[in-house]
Amino acid sequence: MKRNIQELISQMTLEEKASLCSGLDFWHTKGVERLGIPSVMMTDGPHGLRKQRASADNLGLFDSVPATCFPSAAGLASSWDRELIGKVGVALGEECQAEDVAILLGPGVNIKRSPLCGRNFEYFSEDPYLSSEMAAAHIQGVQSQGVGTSLKHFAVNNQEHRRMTTNAVVDERTLREIYLASFEGAVKKGQPWTVMCAYNQLNGEYCAENERLLTDILKDDWGHEGFVVSDWGAVNERADGLAAGLELEMPTSNGAGDRKIVESVKSGRLSEKKLDSAVERILNIVFMAVDSKKPDASYDPEAHHILARAVARESMVLLKNEDGILPLPKSGKIAVIGQLAKQPRYQGGGSSHIKPTKLEDISEELAKSAGSGAEIAYAQGYELNGDQTNPQLLKEAIKLAEDASVVILFVGLPDRYESEGFDREHLNLPLNQSQLIEAVTAVQKRTVLVLSNGAPVEMPWIGGVKAVLEAYLGGQALGGAIADLLFGDANPCGKLAETFPVQLSDNSSYLNFPGDGDLVEYKEGIYVGYRYYDKKKLRPLFPFGHGLSYTTFEYSGLVLDKDEMDDTDSVNVSVNIKNTGSRVGKETVQLYVRDVHSSVSRPEKELKGFVKVALKPGEEKTVTFTLDKRSFAYFNMELNDWHVETGEFEILVGKSSADIVLKRTMRVNSTITIAKTYTRNSTVGDLMEDPQAASIVGDLLKHSPFGSSNHEGEEMSELMAAFLKYLPLRGLASFSGGGLTDESLDSLLERLNQANFIPNVVK
Amino acid sequence: MKRNIQELISQMTLEEKASLCSGLDFWHTKGVERLGIPSVMMTDGPHGLRKQRASADNLGLFDSVPATCFPSAAGLASSWDRELIGKVGVALGEECQAEDVAILLGPGVNIKRSPLCGRNFEYFSEDPYLSSEMAAAHIQGVQSQGVGTSLKHFAVNNQEHRRMTTNAVVDERTLREIYLASFEGAVKKGQPWTVMCAYNQLNGEYCAENERLLTDILKDDWGHEGFVVSDWGAVNERADGLAAGLELEMPTSNGAGDRKIVESVKSGRLSEKKLDSAVERILNIVFMAVDSKKPDASYDPEAHHILARAVARESMVLLKNEDGILPLPKSGKIAVIGQLAKQPRYQGGGSSHIKPTKLEDISEELAKSAGSGAEIAYAQGYELNGDQTNPQLLKEAIKLAEDASVVILFVGLPDRYESEGFDREHLNLPLNQSQLIEAVTAVQKRTVLVLSNGAPVEMPWIGGVKAVLEAYLGGQALGGAIADLLFGDANPCGKLAETFPVQLSDNSSYLNFPGDGDLVEYKEGIYVGYRYYDKKKLRPLFPFGHGLSYTTFEYSGLVLDKDEMDDTDSVNVSVNIKNTGSRVGKETVQLYVRDVHSSVSRPEKELKGFVKVALKPGEEKTVTFTLDKRSFAYFNMELNDWHVETGEFEILVGKSSADIVLKRTMRVNSTITIAKTYTRNSTVGDLMEDPQAASIVGDLLKHSPFGSSNHEGEEMSELMAAFLKYLPLRGLASFSGGGLTDESLDSLLERLNQANFIPNVVK
Repeated sequence: MKRNIQELISQMTLEEKASLCSGLDFWHTKGVERLGIPSVMMTDGPHGLRKQRASADNLGLFDSVPATCFPSAAGLASSWDRELIGKVGVALGEECQAEDVAILLGPGVNIKRSPLCGRNFEYFSEDPYLSSEMAAAHIQGVQSQGVGTSLKHFAVNNQEHRRMTTNAVVDERTLREIYLASFEGAVKKGQPWTVMCAYNQLNGEYCAENERLLTDILKDDWGHEGFVVSDWGAVNERADGLAAGLELEMPTSNGAGDRKIVESVKSGRLSEKKLDSAVERILNIVFMAVDSKKPDASYDPEAHHILARAVARESMVLLKNEDGILPLPKSGKIAVIGQLAKQPRYQGGGSSHIKPTKLEDISEELAKSAGSGAEIAYAQGYELNGDQTNPQLLKEAIKLAEDASVVILFVGLPDRYESEGFDREHLNLPLNQSQLIEAVTAVQKRTVLVLSNGAPVEMPWIGGVKAVLEAYLGGQALGGAIADLLFGDANPCGKLAETFPVQLSDNSSYLNFPGDGDLVEYKEGIYVGYRYYDKKKLRPLFPFGHGLSYTTFEYSGLVLDKDEMDDTDSVNVSVNIKNTGSRVGKETVQLYVRDVHSSVSRPEKELKGFVKVALKPGEEKTVTFTLDKRSFAYFNMELNDWHVETGEFEILVGKSSADIVLKRTMRVNSTITIAKTYTRNSTVGDLMEDPQAASIVGDLLKHSPFGSSNHEGEEMSELMAAFLKYLPLRGLASFSGGGLTDESLDSLLERLNQANFIPNVVK
Repeated sequence: MKRNIQELISQMTLEEKASLCSGLDFWHTKGVERLGIPSVMMTDGPHGLRKQRASADNLGLFDSVPATCFPSAAGLASSWDRELIGKVGVALGEECQAEDVAILLGPGVNIKRSPLCGRNFEYFSEDPYLSSEMAAAHIQGVQSQGVGTSLKHFAVNNQEHRRMTTNAVVDERTLREIYLASFEGAVKKGQPWTVMCAYNQLNGEYCAENERLLTDILKDDWGHEGFVVSDWGAVNERADGLAAGLELEMPTSNGAGDRKIVESVKSGRLSEKKLDSAVERILNIVFMAVDSKKPDASYDPEAHHILARAVARESMVLLKNEDGILPLPKSGKIAVIGQLAKQPRYQGGGSSHIKPTKLEDISEELAKSAGSGAEIAYAQGYELNGDQTNPQLLKEAIKLAEDASVVILFVGLPDRYESEGFDREHLNLPLNQSQLIEAVTAVQKRTVLVLSNGAPVEMPWIGGVKAVLEAYLGGQALGGAIADLLFGDANPCGKLAETFPVQLSDNSSYLNFPGDGDLVEYKEGIYVGYRYYDKKKLRPLFPFGHGLSYTTFEYSGLVLDKDEMDDTDSVNVSVNIKNTGSRVGKETVQLYVRDVHSSVSRPEKELKGFVKVALKPGEEKTVTFTLDKRSFAYFNMELNDWHVETGEFEILVGKSSADIVLKRTMRVNSTITIAKTYTRNSTVGDLMEDPQAASIVGDLLKHSPFGSSNHEGEEMSELMAAFLKYLPLRGLASFSGGGLTDESLDSLLERLNQANFIPNVVK
């Protein structure tokens, strides 16, 4: 339905306009009855709907209606499957329609800077490209159902520790290449109805009042058309926030925020035009929600549960599978050990915690899958709600393990270890679980470990287990998915969207996480995740992109459709993948780009494409990628734009970031020339690299003390050359014996900068 | 002789005063004949005198008079022997007196941030305490002879790459705790006649015109009484430099600098008082030099050579000695392989390169030491002036190695690999040398390697050699020292003053060295050297402080004279060391301090004391240390001062940074309380930690939604507690359902800040 929003705004009083800029309560926007502006509902939950019942507490945390619990984002991203995530989005959208929810508060695309962040389970990846691709698919899915999303938490909200006050200090290049890039792709591809600003400060300014972030970058550069909503309680100074581009304050401020807006407009501190534009953005979305509402919508919980199981299967990552112990035969004495098999951890704690429509019991699902040929017994092993070993439980577990033909050991992190609201302080499993692993593997070599956790753990015991399945937080259908994978009814195809370090201290943010007081400096810069492990030649426990299958894949025929191009052009890349094993399987082909020589520090390689492909035994397919300027670019501070340096690039195709199997080299030519301006502190070396400057300076050098060659043999001449290379022009004056004066230096600079003038150059 | 310098200055014209502020030529200050102000000479060389003959080139690099070449600083520091370095200083002072040199340009105390820095051989350590102690001893030694020193390069000149223009960006805490601390101790203990400012920029300002560095910190905080001289050609804007505290420009600027000073005084940009004070500082030192001049001074080159040999012995570090292969018996067939045995690398390239009074031939010294019982044969093995393997030389070496009872293999870095003027790009030995090592160790298990180099190399071949002696750049008597050590006529006692990494990328500056263009950011902060390896739990090849002996030492009886003290007090620490082996030996006992809990990020431990002790077999001695506030402090940015946080500290005593053998805990109580000021962004958690604030805020919480406990069980209450902990007061207003308004928040803050008032607190 077409409405004239401008006309509507013109009918509103200042107070009415201000009132639209904050929530009615914890979950609703305000309406204006006399003008027919309705109130709409938002609720939490990127991996499932958390709609609070009307009667619930006013902090908005408890008693929600049942909804399908899909795997959390850490798992979803491990599927590397855009289409599948799109389907999850569609299902979520259907549930929102059925529950009369206009906007679902998600997905979250904060980068996994440290594995300690308590909320990592809600985020996709350490890599901005993968993260933004997953988010875009999620947004497109939800929004295809006429339900909005809220891309969060914008931006640089990478820890829970002091999250509401901490100041993340990040250099511009790192912001653009890592932390903002994760949002950028999602905004441009997904156009989420809303973006949620983060609690924290970025470079000294609260994200809730950061104009550069909310207006210059989000709205102007990236073209975001919806509105910005505050994270719940993130508003600092309301009028400053509105001026900066924060349209909606949530939850209600009981009129306080609205009053401040009114006062600021009246005092002239805030322009009414700014307010009008905020109201316009809010109304556009509110009416979009109203117009998209499907009356009497409902959904099929069983169909969604089946989808949740399919998604869970693709979200789990087979990290290790020694001697092909997996898949397990459906026979023999199978010992299922660990309380997590009965009391599964299938979602994270905090605002995303939902009430599932049903919940599979892992041990039951295992029994169902194994069928009557196998004998399955269970031992609790440890108490999930404590860290101390219970000797009786341990003894029972050891006994069961000894007698079994194989042990499936369920371990993982309890809610009290990872949740929204606080970060972990180490990467260990609870002590009673690691003691159980040691004890069980001491008596049973055939031990398969299943992990339930939202983020990496250290695995000092890895040598003792034959297989590790990383199940992440698998959602309500995790039990069936685990059974399908362990017994081979499905073939694992997840790949890690994050690096698993050998030890916490290997992580690049380790020295600077979570910061001192309210200051957290991102000193590791762009070297986040595999970018760091690659550059530092540090072997992780499991690399980014890693994941095993029950079949094998062969890569061949990497072809580029050109071996040289301008940065305004694009290149098509194709590669053949063949299933060379005996089972149906899926492979995620990963494409990385490496700048062979660069004038600035760049990662060894960066993910710039991926395709997931399903293959029957013996089947071969060709997958293709298109790479454009951005695939080769870094963020150039001088240009304040993405820039490609002319030169060679390697196109790397592989099974993981650490397993590159094919490689081709191509050349990209920049169409941008950055103008140089020489000063008295320009070095002789830099001048000599510029042909026009070199001819001028060369003459000068001939008449300087540096012109006379051969002092005491070659070694000293090398030293002299090194000295000269780094010598600034004013230093040349110093060492010239009076031949070059300040005055002659000035006229020299004039000549150099004139010679350097090139038309069409970016200044 | 007493002079009235003030009176002298009052007689000088503006031009005469300005003229004193720059050099006469490459090596001399200017005099003023009519006032009896003489010109004095400075020359290069912390480990030996490099006095250029009058006839030499005007870049000051070539043709110097003979002088004793001591081990370079990398080796000197490995002695960890203040007294010994003092003796070297005395000898250098004697040679200066004999050669009519007033000021020796050294020592250099720049921190070894990266092993790549081409000039590391001239610097002492990666640790500021060790570095400053070594420098103070050196300065005291030289200056005891009435000869000045020039502590260099002030400051943060930690690379040669673009050294004249690069901008080192370093945070204040890192500056104070690492880079400046190395100078601070040397200035305070040694009071060098001059300090030499560095070429580079520090935080955007050339060191040559950095008032904070040259005046506020050096002169005002540390009480430096002498003058600052520019590194040769370091002056950027002369008048700005003088205003900032740079008294003397070197070398001559042919009058240009002087003219600028005169113009600036005349135009009022520079106060004449400032100029007078610069002239006063220069004249104080010039006349100190004149008054200290010993007429007809001479020195005994042979005695200095003997000292050089003793020092070299103590400077070398036995890194590995498997199966006790060393010391070697003076018998059997000994193969000496490697051109470096004949053409030794005994000093570094650049301004410190001197002409030795004599030079020992290593292979001859080995033959002398071994005597007639052994048969010594030599093979060149490789060509020092190239990287390619010469197959004929390799073949000869393998042949010789096969037939020998032991091989002594001489390898190291040629001058073209490390020198003033450029940095290394990797830590490898030349290819022909590493190929030689592989080939020789393949045929001869009994291989002893001797390294000649100024800084660490990677040792991928270490598993194949039985022993490694790090000889550093051992000075002119290196040959005898190596022979003494290998055959056991002396017992190795050097310990590393720097970490040897397994691979270059393990170094903490790796991602940020040498920077992009002219910007080098010290993002690793205080985590330099062992501070990084400790914190990151990264095993180095050889840790800081490591060094083997032919005897064994036992540590016992670590005693503190108190277990609690105020930070205004000091504690005495004693420990017993016993020589439990059968040879006379020396041990360097190292004391480190660890802050058990800290509110800011601190190293795992920091060196705060060391004592070198000589022990006969069976002999035991007690060594003592005194620790004061500084030993426990970090640099607090809020106080702009060193600060000790009240709490537990561990006193760690060990044989190296990675081999701590004794430990005691004590408590230090701060006498400084830092006032807190609460704002609307103070978190509830922070307030609750302050007893006075907690009682006020506690009341408030009771009446908030957070006051009602027990929502859906304990897990959710934990989340609520976490949420509340990080909630700022203004957020409490947001979630209070209108109970806490902005106005009531203001009056609450007033109460909190009044309650918090404590007399005698640093604000």
